[in-house]
Amino acid sequence: MVSKLRAAIIGATGYSGVELIRILSQHPHVEIAMVISTSQEGQDFSKVYPHLKGIIKARLSALEIDSISQQVDLVFFATPARVAKDLVPRFRDNGVKCIDISGDFRFKSPEIYQKWYQAEAANEKYLKQAVYGLSEINSELIKNAELIANPGCYPTATLLGLIPAIQKNWINPYSIIVDAKSGVSGAGRTPAVGSLFAEVNENLKAYKLGTHQHLPEIEQAISDFCGTQPLISFTTHLIPMNRGIMCTIYANLIADIQVDDLIEHYQNFYYDRPFIRIRPSGTWPSTKEVYGSNYCDIGFFVDQRTRRLTIVSVIDNLVKGAAGQAVQNLNIMYGWNEATGLYLNPLYP
Amino acid sequence: MVSKLRAAIIGATGYSGVELIRILSQHPHVEIAMVISTSQEGQDFSKVYPHLKGIIKARLSALEIDSISQQVDLVFFATPARVAKDLVPRFRDNGVKCIDISGDFRFKSPEIYQKWYQAEAANEKYLKQAVYGLSEINSELIKNAELIANPGCYPTATLLGLIPAIQKNWINPYSIIVDAKSGVSGAGRTPAVGSLFAEVNENLKAYKLGTHQHLPEIEQAISDFCGTQPLISFTTHLIPMNRGIMCTIYANLIADIQVDDLIEHYQNFYYDRPFIRIRPSGTWPSTKEVYGSNYCDIGFFVDQRTRRLTIVSVIDNLVKGAAGQAVQNLNIMYGWNEATGLYLNPLYP
Amino acid sequence: MVSKLRAAIIGATGYSGVELIRILSQHPHVEIAMVISTSQEGQDFSKVYPHLKGIIKARLSALEIDSISQQVDLVFFATPARVAKDLVPRFRDNGVKCIDISGDFRFKSPEIYQKWYQAEAANEKYLKQAVYGLSEINSELIKNAELIANPGCYPTATLLGLIPAIQKNWINPYSIIVDAKSGVSGAGRTPAVGSLFAEVNENLKAYKLGTHQHLPEIEQAISDFCGTQPLISFTTHLIPMNRGIMCTIYANLIADIQVDDLIEHYQNFYYDRPFIRIRPSGTWPSTKEVYGSNYCDIGFFVDQRTRRLTIVSVIDNLVKGAAGQAVQNLNIMYGWNEATGLYLNPLYP
Amino acid sequence: MVSKLRAAIIGATGYSGVELIRILSQHPHVEIAMVISTSQEGQDFSKVYPHLKGIIKARLSALEIDSISQQVDLVFFATPARVAKDLVPRFRDNGVKCIDISGDFRFKSPEIYQKWYQAEAANEKYLKQAVYGLSEINSELIKNAELIANPGCYPTATLLGLIPAIQKNWINPYSIIVDAKSGVSGAGRTPAVGSLFAEVNENLKAYKLGTHQHLPEIEQAISDFCGTQPLISFTTHLIPMNRGIMCTIYANLIADIQVDDLIEHYQNFYYDRPFIRIRPSGTWPSTKEVYGSNYCDIGFFVDQRTRRLTIVSVIDNLVKGAAGQAVQNLNIMYGWNEATGLYLNPLYP
Repeated sequence: MVSKLRAAIIGATGYSGVELIRILSQHPHVEIAMVISTSQEGQDFSKVYPHLKGIIKARLSALEIDSISQQVDLVFFATPARVAKDLVPRFRDNGVKCIDISGDFRFKSPEIYQKWYQAEAANEKYLKQAVYGLSEINSELIKNAELIANPGCYPTATLLGLIPAIQKNWINPYSIIVDAKSGVSGAGRTPAVGSLFAEVNENLKAYKLGTHQHLPEIEQAISDFCGTQPLISFTTHLIPMNRGIMCTIYANLIADIQVDDLIEHYQNFYYDRPFIRIRPSGTWPSTKEVYGSNYCDIGFFVDQRTRRLTIVSVIDNLVKGAAGQAVQNLNIMYGWNEATGLYLNPLYP
Repeated sequence: MVSKLRAAIIGATGYSGVELIRILSQHPHVEIAMVISTSQEGQDFSKVYPHLKGIIKARLSALEIDSISQQVDLVFFATPARVAKDLVPRFRDNGVKCIDISGDFRFKSPEIYQKWYQAEAANEKYLKQAVYGLSEINSELIKNAELIANPGCYPTATLLGLIPAIQKNWINPYSIIVDAKSGVSGAGRTPAVGSLFAEVNENLKAYKLGTHQHLPEIEQAISDFCGTQPLISFTTHLIPMNRGIMCTIYANLIADIQVDDLIEHYQNFYYDRPFIRIRPSGTWPSTKEVYGSNYCDIGFFVDQRTRRLTIVSVIDNLVKGAAGQAVQNLNIMYGWNEATGLYLNPLYP
Repeated sequence: MVSKLRAAIIGATGYSGVELIRILSQHPHVEIAMVISTSQEGQDFSKVYPHLKGIIKARLSALEIDSISQQVDLVFFATPARVAKDLVPRFRDNGVKCIDISGDFRFKSPEIYQKWYQAEAANEKYLKQAVYGLSEINSELIKNAELIANPGCYPTATLLGLIPAIQKNWINPYSIIVDAKSGVSGAGRTPAVGSLFAEVNENLKAYKLGTHQHLPEIEQAISDFCGTQPLISFTTHLIPMNRGIMCTIYANLIADIQVDDLIEHYQNFYYDRPFIRIRPSGTWPSTKEVYGSNYCDIGFFVDQRTRRLTIVSVIDNLVKGAAGQAVQNLNIMYGWNEATGLYLNPLYP
Repeated sequence: MVSKLRAAIIGATGYSGVELIRILSQHPHVEIAMVISTSQEGQDFSKVYPHLKGIIKARLSALEIDSISQQVDLVFFATPARVAKDLVPRFRDNGVKCIDISGDFRFKSPEIYQKWYQAEAANEKYLKQAVYGLSEINSELIKNAELIANPGCYPTATLLGLIPAIQKNWINPYSIIVDAKSGVSGAGRTPAVGSLFAEVNENLKAYKLGTHQHLPEIEQAISDFCGTQPLISFTTHLIPMNRGIMCTIYANLIADIQVDDLIEHYQNFYYDRPFIRIRPSGTWPSTKEVYGSNYCDIGFFVDQRTRRLTIVSVIDNLVKGAAGQAVQNLNIMYGWNEATGLYLNPLYP
């Protein structure tokens, strides 16, 4: 019997961290060896999150890099922005593989990171090492990666919806508009007035117009994967729900195609990839249909009047948009079936 | 002392009807003389809607057109589509003024109505009589109208946000994309699987892509008011909340303007109109900020990179998007201050 | 023309404060002369709460007691617990009337306050001055009060539902169980993990069993108003909604009465009081039926098998449970109709 | 390799049916051989429920009893009340085992069924065969059962919380009050005004006071399992959430015990049962902590002043309250580990 991979989770008490634990606790090849929280060190984990009682028996550990490095094979960073950039290099120098769910290693250019994250970027040596973990698009590089920059939630939904059409040269890359909508768990567990129930419930808010850090991430990824530099309008909205992202994507068609062409192409493009589901013509996905799962569901509308294509792409922001895709990347890195531990049926209703 | 205007409400037990009653019950110049429901005739209204106990004492009456015509000066139609088109003419022939909240009299062209509503249109004589009741834009005609076609909820938010920019020739009318989001009360009180709590809650749904009947309404109104025929992409989404509409509107700029220019122009355009509030630069409205009120709040973003304008326009779909604007039109018709009876402060939180 | 009463609101940026402003801004006899916030002094109020733009034009003032005292006739305290107890005496010494929405002046006994609020009580001289502002029960004393201790939200719903039955000696006061449920706005606007949308939504929580400070308030009020010392079990629950309180109250019957007897007695007891509505037999109120209004709706069930009475009492926690009842008390103090400024129709749906 | 158990689901398109599919699709010993729906026969199941695309490939079959009987070993009834009572006997006569999630076989007395379900009961021969499937309490009989009457959602939460205390003779069985709260999925997928989003959201409703059919079920089960006939007050409330039941249970203590005694006793009572979790002193479970899982979490409060015990018991109504417990019973019937296929981690947040 082969021994399990030993993993640590840093930032285990945030929502992405706790979602990693939900998933990894049932992964056949992984042992959650350590859960680390600088803020609640020493506490029994099931005191912080009673829903995990009986599922994980662990005490929150302090962040001692060398000690952790000796005990685990791989570290997940489920930390807020600007934390992993200084920690990852030290784990890498200790030979530990890293999967960073935050945005700290997603940009190749330190300047772009600095501009959008208002902080100095990680050392370029490590930025170069990092592989952008968009599982369905970048598997070849992920296979050999030792440091994964896990994609952001909005970029995941947007890119999976857009890339096949751009690669076919079916849409004008300067005409793309992404109207993005997210549940509130994306804002994390840090208390803030804007995340209070009484502020968000019965409310719909547009936020960060033109300044969301996921915009340059999307543009960089399209440029990298499609070899064309797009110019995208990107608006984010806060929806009164816990989980779920929908990106409604608009672009001008530059080819004479129909919905059926799109469906056929996307099905081929994602052939054999277990987590992409293409909707039949005339129907579009809703976020509840992927709730709690690693699926990305995609539907299309072609408007003959305006010659514009609309793509509707949905994911669960905490699963395919964070912890689930991180585990999918782990599976790819280790040569396991990419769906291992990710047979998470959507919860409906 | 002047006697009050006597009004009837047909379709009083739907959500728009009950919202009319909330508003009219405190209107200083109006008496709710009759509330009519074909489905629940004879019932005490506060049995159907206990929240109105002590506020309105009325029994639901049958739909007897001549009898109603003798008792009231004006009829509000808060009926589903395809009902008012046959009833309004008979009231008009009896000399009764009508305000129709449904879509039956919004199109001048019977063909367009037939195409989008899958039913024969009203007699053209009455279609011609009907004045499109977008209060802030069409007051002059509303003043002398005897039949008002009250605008749809999505068109109200969209048009109030778009028209000033189009009239200035600041945006390309062929580039307009309206990403529209609505609370569930817009679907009415008729039981349907798609409106069930367990289906809508924790969910976000795109629906009716390319087929929503509010699209031709928006295009016709822009053509009528701005003299330019636009070509619009229009997508509607169902948000897990009771009330509120947000239209996020995208268009290509064809003039060298900034957010401050937009703010100044819109403030001038809507000068002295009590229900339009323009947001300061760098902020955008959320639907809760107009909850329960007749306001339409509008904010802007100009993206220098893409030369695209984003307009965020919000209303309460049951108030400014239905019953509130109907009362505003009533006020204009009768020469009263247009805010009479509409001092409804938003409920927050 | 009589000049208006000049009022200040301290703690204007909390949810009770902002609800006071919603109500008072349309009160015919009151002018909101000052809005005070220690945390956001100097800010334009509509920057903090954009929904109030155009409704109130005010800058948040600092808490300068003597200056405020010279400018206003009366001060509302919409402050967290433990703030008013030190401030009210200084305003009272300046001759200013006070209505305290917090719990600081509700107990006659300093020891009980100290035990349940973990802080030293206000000076007893002022505790004695304070009149418990349960409007329907205590109007006679409220008329001449200069310092009102506005009741808590749970006590308001509970006491209005219980007192008439206790006074008739119909129920055993040692058998009372109050199962109380509240929306989240009751927790205020201070950021806390437990009030985050993602924690509260799709969740139902029981909290503070046996330790909620509203329990002794309820028992004291029953003792004061009914002359009998009850012994109550009191459990509070957090409901995923913004507004609304429901108290489901259980007690053993000690008289041979039926629902109709209860309805008749309660209707007589609250005769001519505009805000109490008694539900017909076999129906019970829901919180949405009083949403945004000052109503308290009450329904009954008599279980012949167990000889137990169930009372269902609902209010909007921010209106009848806070700001609305405060204004009702103001009206009573000044001899105005108690409903003045409180014709707030429930918002439905 | 042993062949799998072949199961059919009747009523597969209801919420309990679809939850059964979520669970059984990953059960190692079960094959979903047929999914039956009289209303949508012939349809591809993933058209009705797109979230199941790629998870279950099945067409909805007609209800042909003999044909089904030949193809499967066991039938789950996820049907509305009053359906299984006539169908189960025919399957039983064909030698097919049955698990009925509806209430049709829970009462031994046909009269009680008739009184509370307003319909004639099933033939007594089959009522006698039926074993009440409260897994943790009744395992011995379940092991040999061929017809399971799966408990109701409210009874499950109530009985698991109450029975250990009653068996110890710690509480007065005539003093029990159950204040029960449920999410909306319990009302099923049939369209009804009372289940519409706009009616339930931002609302809290008490319903069916004294007439809920789960009351006699609870009393019968206590009588059967504890040998004492209780007299219970039972009130149900509708909470604006999809999933989750909380029963707040009150009873007079007749023994001198503390919370620690309760915790110890309950832990012993449920020793080795994987789905019962007892909360530490001073904490109580919330429904989100069992969301999507088969857990029942229980917490206690002992009020020294009133000598009353409060028990807080939570479940997910669709899992432990329906489909999950049905699968747990299946496991017990077939001698498998009772948690097989039920390692469903709660989804949080």
